[in-house]
Amino acid sequence: MALVVKKFGGSSVATTEKILAVAERILGEKKPEDKIVVVVSAMGDTTDELIALAEGIDKEPYKATYLREMDMLLTTGEQISISLLAMAFQKFGQAAISLTGSMVGVKTNSVHTKGKILDINPERVLEELNKGKIVVVAGFQGADNLGDPVTLGRGGSDASAVALAGALHADECEIFTDVDGIYSADPRIVKTARKMTEITYREMLEMARLGAGVMQPRSVEIGHYFNIPIHVRSTFSDKIGTVIREAYTLEDTYFEIRGVAHDRNVAKIAILGVDNTPGIAHKIFSALADANISVDMIVQSIRNLDKNITDMVFTIEKSDLSMAKKVIDKIAEKINASTVLVEEDVAKVSIVGAGMVGSPGVAAKMFGALARAGVNIDIISTSEISVSCLIKGSQLVEAVNSVHDEFFRD
Amino acid sequence: MALVVKKFGGSSVATTEKILAVAERILGEKKPEDKIVVVVSAMGDTTDELIALAEGIDKEPYKATYLREMDMLLTTGEQISISLLAMAFQKFGQAAISLTGSMVGVKTNSVHTKGKILDINPERVLEELNKGKIVVVAGFQGADNLGDPVTLGRGGSDASAVALAGALHADECEIFTDVDGIYSADPRIVKTARKMTEITYREMLEMARLGAGVMQPRSVEIGHYFNIPIHVRSTFSDKIGTVIREAYTLEDTYFEIRGVAHDRNVAKIAILGVDNTPGIAHKIFSALADANISVDMIVQSIRNLDKNITDMVFTIEKSDLSMAKKVIDKIAEKINASTVLVEEDVAKVSIVGAGMVGSPGVAAKMFGALARAGVNIDIISTSEISVSCLIKGSQLVEAVNSVHDEFFRD
Repeated sequence: MALVVKKFGGSSVATTEKILAVAERILGEKKPEDKIVVVVSAMGDTTDELIALAEGIDKEPYKATYLREMDMLLTTGEQISISLLAMAFQKFGQAAISLTGSMVGVKTNSVHTKGKILDINPERVLEELNKGKIVVVAGFQGADNLGDPVTLGRGGSDASAVALAGALHADECEIFTDVDGIYSADPRIVKTARKMTEITYREMLEMARLGAGVMQPRSVEIGHYFNIPIHVRSTFSDKIGTVIREAYTLEDTYFEIRGVAHDRNVAKIAILGVDNTPGIAHKIFSALADANISVDMIVQSIRNLDKNITDMVFTIEKSDLSMAKKVIDKIAEKINASTVLVEEDVAKVSIVGAGMVGSPGVAAKMFGALARAGVNIDIISTSEISVSCLIKGSQLVEAVNSVHDEFFRD
Repeated sequence: MALVVKKFGGSSVATTEKILAVAERILGEKKPEDKIVVVVSAMGDTTDELIALAEGIDKEPYKATYLREMDMLLTTGEQISISLLAMAFQKFGQAAISLTGSMVGVKTNSVHTKGKILDINPERVLEELNKGKIVVVAGFQGADNLGDPVTLGRGGSDASAVALAGALHADECEIFTDVDGIYSADPRIVKTARKMTEITYREMLEMARLGAGVMQPRSVEIGHYFNIPIHVRSTFSDKIGTVIREAYTLEDTYFEIRGVAHDRNVAKIAILGVDNTPGIAHKIFSALADANISVDMIVQSIRNLDKNITDMVFTIEKSDLSMAKKVIDKIAEKINASTVLVEEDVAKVSIVGAGMVGSPGVAAKMFGALARAGVNIDIISTSEISVSCLIKGSQLVEAVNSVHDEFFRD
């Protein structure tokens, strides 16, 4: 017997035909004694349609005062898909029951539209599983201590599924998606990218942080916390995907690095000719933090020791650029900087792997691969299990391919 | 200060423009110290759209096995309208909060899609009212003892509003509808019909039972139980409507009868030439009861005392006719009846009024009015506060007008 939580996203349940297909697929794979929980998102465009309704009331429905009501509105999306999927199971003769996030005991904080799961009390789910039912659960939602509906932030349905799997002590959490697993690089860019059989939570987190889009970091963190294997696999095929877990079970999957990640959502800001006095860095970065802008790579270089003048260079998300420019222009005036430069044609390429700790030459190999591809490195940053290089955005494809070849050629 | 529950139906909140208009109207009438609870139905066609989705899973979504999931699906309809109405109040600067049936503490039995309210625990509503908020509540729904959503039967939103008004000890429950009150007869048929200022629960119940469609009997019963005045009024005007209450407050509204009701949803079945032996009636009517068919008027007449042969004539709802015919044909064979006749062109006209108890001539006056209109009476039945006559359906308009003239001419 296995207890498995399976998560299907909005595109997998976009129509009633697709909902019937999901039910059929699950029943086709189910052994009689298996206990199954299915977590689903809202059908295809439902969420957009609900937001459009709210815009009929106010053009800006995400104002702070509206957020609780937006959650009341948006949670109906999953409530529709769960009821239809439960009916689909019943149509095929399988007892099933749908439960909202609140009914499943998903307790969240009260940060409406960006909630975080605090706790899950899966008593009702266990009760229904023990009656032989498939339990269909609304992803992306829970309820706060008042009992008010709260939707989770980006990637919230994955988080619901993994957290529920943890609370149920499930054998595995399967995330069905439009790709068939985690690859050693983005297969749309690198033709020779390999699907991994396994990857550790830590590596997956680092890959996600560095731009690999398949899983949101939050879900991987929750999987890690509960130590639940997360199986990322395709909605459209039966093939085994990639299992994210604590440690490898297979010796032969060992590589120096696990994958090459990249991120195009990067912009660079350089503040040149700054007096190198104590507190300058604090002034700049606390102003950005106050504007809720995350800074990624930071380099400070002493240009002229005599005059004690420094340059401050850092990267942010491209989407934060116009806001950041405003903040920095103000600061630059205050601190008497000579120039502020903005560069949008940048991207980040990274290698990730727990194996690199014991392999000193890994970073050098990466730099060599970039040099051979004629790619200049602008900034370098490292963590315990990753090395990242900021490069010209227009050279990203060559860079990723060259680095991937270096580590994954046979 | 007044605590008032106001109920708006689906057509009043069919679009976001209409939702904004409802909010504006309520705020326009609200005194600063008033406490207001608004009960709303699902927007216009939402329920039909949700049912269409369910039909995408199974052509017969109202099979018993699906009913719980249908409730999970259908309760989203009101959840959408309450969130939008709460946002509309906030847009106009009025603090407001939406609550589902379950959050309001509407406890129901577990008869999915046809639930009955067992109890209401309005703690959360009172809490929010005391914070100065308008509370927007999802009508037509509650939750059973498992916490599962349950929709109420026909007229359920009215029932929600009246029951909530009762639980809150409200001063009044206002039902906003597309007519501006209760009339002494259907104004579409009787041009001189008068709007009543007041009517008692008992009379309104009898009117509803005898075909007056404005209020469902269940809501009136609940109002009677809690002794909450129900004010039936128009969504489209500010005029006072009709108040349903325990006893009249105004002497001058006294008439012998309160109104003329009529019902076209009637069919007549006659079983002729039945042996008049004990148990025959029981056989016929228990067979109908087993098929869940309600019988209204019943007449048994001895045709031939010598042969001890009787005729059994009764009326049912027209919509039950084909089912009833099948049941009766079987019984007729068993009991050796000579003929079964079915008559569809029938209708019922009734007068209702608590005043008739003390006025012996009331029934005779009604029969006289029908005779003058050339209307033949087929069956007569009476209750303490009503007299009903079965007549030809094609003569209904003349009949209702003549009876109404008799009692309401100046």
